[in-house]
Amino acid sequence: MSTFDIVPKTKQDALVETLLRLADDRLIHGHRLSEWTGHGPELEEDLALANVALDMIGHASSLYGYAAELEGKKDEDYYAYFRDDMDFKNIAMVELPRGDFAFTIARQFLFSAFSYFLYKNLIDTVDDEQFNGMLQKHFKEIKYHLRHSREWVLRLGDGTEESHQRIQDAFDEIWMYTGELFDLDEADHAAIEHSLYVDVTAFKNDWQDLVNPVIEEATLTVPDDDQYMFFGSRQGRHTEHLGPLLAQMQFLRRSYPDAEWK
Amino acid sequence: MSTFDIVPKTKQDALVETLLRLADDRLIHGHRLSEWTGHGPELEEDLALANVALDMIGHASSLYGYAAELEGKKDEDYYAYFRDDMDFKNIAMVELPRGDFAFTIARQFLFSAFSYFLYKNLIDTVDDEQFNGMLQKHFKEIKYHLRHSREWVLRLGDGTEESHQRIQDAFDEIWMYTGELFDLDEADHAAIEHSLYVDVTAFKNDWQDLVNPVIEEATLTVPDDDQYMFFGSRQGRHTEHLGPLLAQMQFLRRSYPDAEWK
Repeated sequence: MSTFDIVPKTKQDALVETLLRLADDRLIHGHRLSEWTGHGPELEEDLALANVALDMIGHASSLYGYAAELEGKKDEDYYAYFRDDMDFKNIAMVELPRGDFAFTIARQFLFSAFSYFLYKNLIDTVDDEQFNGMLQKHFKEIKYHLRHSREWVLRLGDGTEESHQRIQDAFDEIWMYTGELFDLDEADHAAIEHSLYVDVTAFKNDWQDLVNPVIEEATLTVPDDDQYMFFGSRQGRHTEHLGPLLAQMQFLRRSYPDAEWK
Repeated sequence: MSTFDIVPKTKQDALVETLLRLADDRLIHGHRLSEWTGHGPELEEDLALANVALDMIGHASSLYGYAAELEGKKDEDYYAYFRDDMDFKNIAMVELPRGDFAFTIARQFLFSAFSYFLYKNLIDTVDDEQFNGMLQKHFKEIKYHLRHSREWVLRLGDGTEESHQRIQDAFDEIWMYTGELFDLDEADHAAIEHSLYVDVTAFKNDWQDLVNPVIEEATLTVPDDDQYMFFGSRQGRHTEHLGPLLAQMQFLRRSYPDAEWK
């Protein structure tokens, strides 16, 4: 059964929904980043990307773990391996194919900058102790992700003609998926009422004030906000790219649900 | 040019050769482990395997880095991306395809147990300060790799009928590649003379005393040592599996040697 059309009624429902939304973004993004392991442009960067991927999958795992506790599921694996694409609540930006290195960096930068402000605001808002503890722990790593991707945006934008063009193309391509970052639906509003989520539109300006100057310093052009924007992934209407990703990620576990060996 | 037939003459040559042999084992093993990222049997294990992979690639990167310094190469990437398969000095065990989870665990266990004794002995022997410092740092992580894989051997061996059979098959299949662990060639002897390597045959008994009881406790049978053993990978005569692995790992970097974006 899909859950995307159910608006959380209780505080616990709202908490579970929020945990899953945060976790799904990070699991899927982490999975896309992990596709670089062994394929990075240099050994050091290979390790750096793999570390960011691990952080993101790790964050997802803790968030799922808490949701599992609240919902009485056996463990966090249920959410990663046994839900269908319609039940995943991640934004479309993170499910897009890994693309080239420039695309990977542009996405990581835009997403990490968003996560930075989101977690900062959530830490000041969320009164659930266990959830807030996780946010604080993950926030430290998010600051590193932001620094890492920011440096690469500058290096690629202000690099060779080709690297400049590629990262410009990446920002141009990805921009239509940034609208979802600042979208709020009924489930979000329910969570906000319980002090479990924040009004993300309130820090859109802060995000722009962080992101735009970096893009400009990298001698790149900030894409126009006044263009077609993609919406609906958070509510289960995903791009065609999520299905194949889940098929690959879930195949073994679903084929042998109780097997540890495969 | 291949270097596998050159016996190191100077202490520095012997040091470079030793660094590369250690690093190649770890880079290739790390690469095989990284193929599990996003495909592990559970989220926790996905993260654990990816962490072990990262450790191994990290160890390789430091060892290559020191070799690059000694040989006046620009950086460690030369060794990972611009050598051909004949120049790689890794043992065959680590280049075998990732196989199923049981195979991955059996290999990691046998290799980590070997690394444990190798590093322990090297730390007591090597008088090169920088090299010894690395060994000490990596040794802590090797102890974790050993503990992690040991626990899984017990869990799989003493698990379901199928997991038992799979890990037994894995040990049976991999055993012919354990001979290379305790092989010494002229380059090793040259390194031993300079206190840069150790006589690995001296701790084969210790290795057996660690490995065999775990296999037996897991209700498995230790394969017969008196069987055909594979040799020659360390000297550049690899199995057919290394070429495709390198092709995949080196493709992007070789296609665009100065590009950062791809």
